[in-house]
Amino acid sequence: MEELNEIGKKAKQAMGQLANLNTDQKNKVLMLVAELLEKHTDTILKANAIDLEKGKEMGLKGAIMDRLTLSGERIAGIAEGLREIVQLEDPIGEIEEMKKRPNGLLIGKKRVPLGVVGVIYESRPNVTADVAGLCIKTGNVCLLRGGKEAFQSNNAIVKIFHEAIRSCGLDPNMVQLVQNTTRESAVAMMKLNDYLDILIPRGGAGLIKTVVQNSTVPVIETGVGNCHVYVDDAADLEKAVAIVYNAKTDRPGVCNAAESLLVHEHVAEEVIPAIGKVLMAGGVEIRGDETTCRLIPEATAAVEEDWATEYLDLVISSKVIGSVEEAVDHINKYGSMHSESIITENYSHAQYFLDRVDAAAVYVNASTRFTDGFEFGYGAEIGISTQKLHARGPMGLKELTTNKYVIYGSGQIR
Amino acid sequence: MEELNEIGKKAKQAMGQLANLNTDQKNKVLMLVAELLEKHTDTILKANAIDLEKGKEMGLKGAIMDRLTLSGERIAGIAEGLREIVQLEDPIGEIEEMKKRPNGLLIGKKRVPLGVVGVIYESRPNVTADVAGLCIKTGNVCLLRGGKEAFQSNNAIVKIFHEAIRSCGLDPNMVQLVQNTTRESAVAMMKLNDYLDILIPRGGAGLIKTVVQNSTVPVIETGVGNCHVYVDDAADLEKAVAIVYNAKTDRPGVCNAAESLLVHEHVAEEVIPAIGKVLMAGGVEIRGDETTCRLIPEATAAVEEDWATEYLDLVISSKVIGSVEEAVDHINKYGSMHSESIITENYSHAQYFLDRVDAAAVYVNASTRFTDGFEFGYGAEIGISTQKLHARGPMGLKELTTNKYVIYGSGQIR
Repeated sequence: MEELNEIGKKAKQAMGQLANLNTDQKNKVLMLVAELLEKHTDTILKANAIDLEKGKEMGLKGAIMDRLTLSGERIAGIAEGLREIVQLEDPIGEIEEMKKRPNGLLIGKKRVPLGVVGVIYESRPNVTADVAGLCIKTGNVCLLRGGKEAFQSNNAIVKIFHEAIRSCGLDPNMVQLVQNTTRESAVAMMKLNDYLDILIPRGGAGLIKTVVQNSTVPVIETGVGNCHVYVDDAADLEKAVAIVYNAKTDRPGVCNAAESLLVHEHVAEEVIPAIGKVLMAGGVEIRGDETTCRLIPEATAAVEEDWATEYLDLVISSKVIGSVEEAVDHINKYGSMHSESIITENYSHAQYFLDRVDAAAVYVNASTRFTDGFEFGYGAEIGISTQKLHARGPMGLKELTTNKYVIYGSGQIR
Repeated sequence: MEELNEIGKKAKQAMGQLANLNTDQKNKVLMLVAELLEKHTDTILKANAIDLEKGKEMGLKGAIMDRLTLSGERIAGIAEGLREIVQLEDPIGEIEEMKKRPNGLLIGKKRVPLGVVGVIYESRPNVTADVAGLCIKTGNVCLLRGGKEAFQSNNAIVKIFHEAIRSCGLDPNMVQLVQNTTRESAVAMMKLNDYLDILIPRGGAGLIKTVVQNSTVPVIETGVGNCHVYVDDAADLEKAVAIVYNAKTDRPGVCNAAESLLVHEHVAEEVIPAIGKVLMAGGVEIRGDETTCRLIPEATAAVEEDWATEYLDLVISSKVIGSVEEAVDHINKYGSMHSESIITENYSHAQYFLDRVDAAAVYVNASTRFTDGFEFGYGAEIGISTQKLHARGPMGLKELTTNKYVIYGSGQIR
């Protein structure tokens, strides 16, 4: 596709300059973008109004329209996010594990940018600024392919990045927005191996699956979270009720929310009614196995598909099982390797669960809702990886880097 | 494909046990395999003889037949390789960066196996034992899909692994050899997302390209090395001649051998004839640009394709360029991001080259031949990654692992 090849070429050209900026130069750009975003709030809101108008015509509503909507406050929040990125330590350039080999070669691992990062995302225009900010800080050129529903807003934000980058005397092609928002451009991006070093899909399960199955560019899978809370036979039931309630209802639309409850049969009679009560009071629909449905008359019968579903809504599936081993097997079979929690006071059960559950984050006695760059203490994140390669869990600045061996010789031959 | 689904299921079942073995248990298996390999040398050689016979019938010869051939000495070498893996530190289970968050959550990054590692490889039967050994040590189940030309040898080696694993009371499915060696099984492996965590192609450029373009399983690209030596205008010409000669001729068939020579125009008249002389004495064919051909009358004219070619043979391309910047641009355009070397005494040129060349290993005043797990001090390697994600450069034990966040709570909710 012509546009993407052009964008790709420009990205490659911008790469050398950006990768070799020092931290002060990169921070200066980010501070200026933050300032200009606030200064040009009206311009951004006008662009956003066009998107919202079109969105209405397209019949968008509810959560999608909400994610699409900007306001003065939200723009200030985006600017604040960039200032927070400025505060984060720059991982680039550090040389680790420098060592002298017996033949005199001095070998070190230098932390360097990935190069060109592609992101395919959906309605939220704030992703544009978040991703561009994280990429600039880590010396990565970014190619942004946002959804057509947010096109005007994304363009307005990228223009501000360009203004700031230009006034710092740098190449604006370090941040580029794909202008074609058809399916064709997304597909072309998945095959852009000549120019892209990595492709990150941010959005719903459908988008992520499409990218994983079709991309020849290396992909980092993010965000799908079919998270479980397992209430063990040795659970403190009070903690169990509070944690299940929090994990399900605190923010049901996000990937670290719980989607499935597993309860040991020895405590089912006591804890399932108690959990059912608070969940229903919170407006949660319960889809249960036979025992759950007997203990919570309002629950409906779960079908096989429910165990594998990320509802992203006030719905939870519930199943009674016979042992911690069975719980782990169920999670490893149906989970999406995101965040899993056991509630127990039994030491061996806790260790078994931590060892055997195959997920990015495994908890004992805490809500799954903590899987998040800020909560883990890493600052802003570009997504939460649910794959095992390169990055797993919240991806911060360091996950946008790779290494290069630098070798200082004095004429060594083999 | 039926066979691969069956193998995949068995692999998943073996995963939990293997991932949780302690180092002593894993080392015991490896030591026993080494012992049995030596004990059953005759059986392996008989199997190998069948492969060699068939290979002759198929018309295989030269380097391929050599790679396929086992001997008592080579089998002893394979056993020795396993004993060396035993000596390496086990990376699994270590918890890094454990920290207490303000809310009391204790969060650490635990190093864990990737899970199930698939490897598609060509004629060398020793790869079977090397990969299985590295995988066992790192707690990874491996699915091996070797070439049909080495099928009997591979099967004999895997049988010995199974004997050793069984007599340690463990699940032999931790090492499995795909019995179907048609193209179909390779293709099925590239789509085995339900069971494979990672796929590593080991072989020629054609195999690697096919896997990268067709696999939906995350791939680590290995091994293609179009490596350059750039002789700067500030080069010590004696070092330059020695390094170019070594990088090209020491072992021309491997990925870290030099394939292309770049020479600054200011030193071309002096150094190109000197380099030409030693290379030709070593039997190297030179394909040069106009200046090279003028300075080495025996050189033939290079065409565009030569700049991008990994000869893996006693052939080198040669080009005269005008500056270190031009050298870097040429390398970033035609190189395969493997190993690149500058020969210079100029500090700023050296730093510029180290900073700007985008490759796994960048050298000053040394031969590219050092890019290798043993030379870098990491021990055995499963391949040399030329991609940026997950691993770059020689991949040792640590590169066969990922992390899992383990979080110890006491009832925390958000």
